[in-house]
Amino acid sequence: MRIVYVNGEYKPENEATVSVFDRGFLFADAVYEGIAVVDGKLIDFPAHIARLERSCKALDMPLNYNYEQLLELNRQVVARNDLKEGFLYFQISRGAADRDFAFDNSALTQSVVIFCQPKSIINNPVVETGMSVITIDDLRWGRCDIKTVQLLYPSLAKMEAKKQGADDAWFVKDGIVMEGTSNNAFIITKDDVIVTRPTSNEILPGITRAAILQYAGENGLKIEERQFSKDEAYQAKEAFISSATTFMFPVVKIDGHQVGDGKVGEHVKKLRALYIEESIKRAV
Amino acid sequence: MRIVYVNGEYKPENEATVSVFDRGFLFADAVYEGIAVVDGKLIDFPAHIARLERSCKALDMPLNYNYEQLLELNRQVVARNDLKEGFLYFQISRGAADRDFAFDNSALTQSVVIFCQPKSIINNPVVETGMSVITIDDLRWGRCDIKTVQLLYPSLAKMEAKKQGADDAWFVKDGIVMEGTSNNAFIITKDDVIVTRPTSNEILPGITRAAILQYAGENGLKIEERQFSKDEAYQAKEAFISSATTFMFPVVKIDGHQVGDGKVGEHVKKLRALYIEESIKRAV
Repeated sequence: MRIVYVNGEYKPENEATVSVFDRGFLFADAVYEGIAVVDGKLIDFPAHIARLERSCKALDMPLNYNYEQLLELNRQVVARNDLKEGFLYFQISRGAADRDFAFDNSALTQSVVIFCQPKSIINNPVVETGMSVITIDDLRWGRCDIKTVQLLYPSLAKMEAKKQGADDAWFVKDGIVMEGTSNNAFIITKDDVIVTRPTSNEILPGITRAAILQYAGENGLKIEERQFSKDEAYQAKEAFISSATTFMFPVVKIDGHQVGDGKVGEHVKKLRALYIEESIKRAV
Repeated sequence: MRIVYVNGEYKPENEATVSVFDRGFLFADAVYEGIAVVDGKLIDFPAHIARLERSCKALDMPLNYNYEQLLELNRQVVARNDLKEGFLYFQISRGAADRDFAFDNSALTQSVVIFCQPKSIINNPVVETGMSVITIDDLRWGRCDIKTVQLLYPSLAKMEAKKQGADDAWFVKDGIVMEGTSNNAFIITKDDVIVTRPTSNEILPGITRAAILQYAGENGLKIEERQFSKDEAYQAKEAFISSATTFMFPVVKIDGHQVGDGKVGEHVKKLRALYIEESIKRAV
């Protein structure tokens, strides 16, 4: 049975609970990070903690743990579950109190939950087959740059994709592709330029997204951070998504339109290999 | 100590917990209702259950309890806590599972939490003094008509109001008043017309809102369901909010502009008395 960290204790998963008065449960007043684990090591850990700190700050939520403490807690969860490959999930919520839209940080004790789930990342079958996406209206709130648990619409969008026989959905606003349900969206043009939309309040500043852009740049690949429409995406040579727990998955079909020749492209393969090489080097 | 209903059991509040894998906690995949209790009786109960059923349907979430069962559970919580005046809160979440944006209703057991909080409703001091509101950009998601726990932004808006020395916030889109953080917004014009914006996907279809419009109509008062701007609100004769747990509170200041003569108006007082009379008659 899995061991879950909850507020200072390591518990069997069936005993891992939070108060019904937790503001994460009543108000979605909670932030989180999902971190890949490969060979028992944490991928891109410093960047995840930096983003967590940013999320907390944006919500005026204190973070009562420093980098070293969070690293130790996350490593403990990996070790106690003997996790080799998969992801760590950790969530900080503002704490439990009588239900009130107003809150008083000084009277709250934040709750911290960390658990892990095994998952095939490096050799996930989707890397070979590619995935299909639909596009769907972006009805999410205006601060998707803050990594909160307000994930109901992305969850519904994922279900809508499955209903339509696809694997996932890309959010679209006025014809412009924003990002995927739990990942950033990229295309590669016929001129071999890697395109992804700039960060803003409307999308998550993906850790893997930033790392890919960095490594691609360092390796002389052409990059444009600009908006692209779903129509441009239909015509792309290649397409892919990036996220902490997939690294990169090729996208071979968008709204039923075959991307390129419909097979996983060479650029995506190379970029993913590059990301794996670099990120494993830096794993902690 | 309060007694809370959680998934079939009545527990002391400090033992009332849900799994950390509950989708209400991880994805805000939960709906709720808040119901006023006066003299130990439930106000507008049938309408709350109808809205709960609508919320569940909109999210493809089953509801495993029928009207009679929910009534019995809510009455039990009132009785076990000897609640005379206050509110009942009940939340249904889709259930607990390994973290995945996709869900399978058939593999999930929904969780049900019911608790109560004492609160002065009938003679709340705000009824005499009125309240002040600020306006704030509406950054919420596109389906505010579904009563989900995605309440982080309303919570932050409430805190911003307090920071600015006001009591609450009204959401505004393109200058148009949408609703309050946890209530519907009304004005009364110089011609004694009660104005509130029509329901849509963008606001909650308030139970108290609907009841007020019904009782006002039955009593020959003039009503217009139409959009109004914050500028029109500044010039109104009276203003107020409605919600299940306030019934109606007068608004005497909007963005620092005094409404009418800055005192609680006669229309609001009469409407509130009318609502109290009618709703207590129908309480169960």
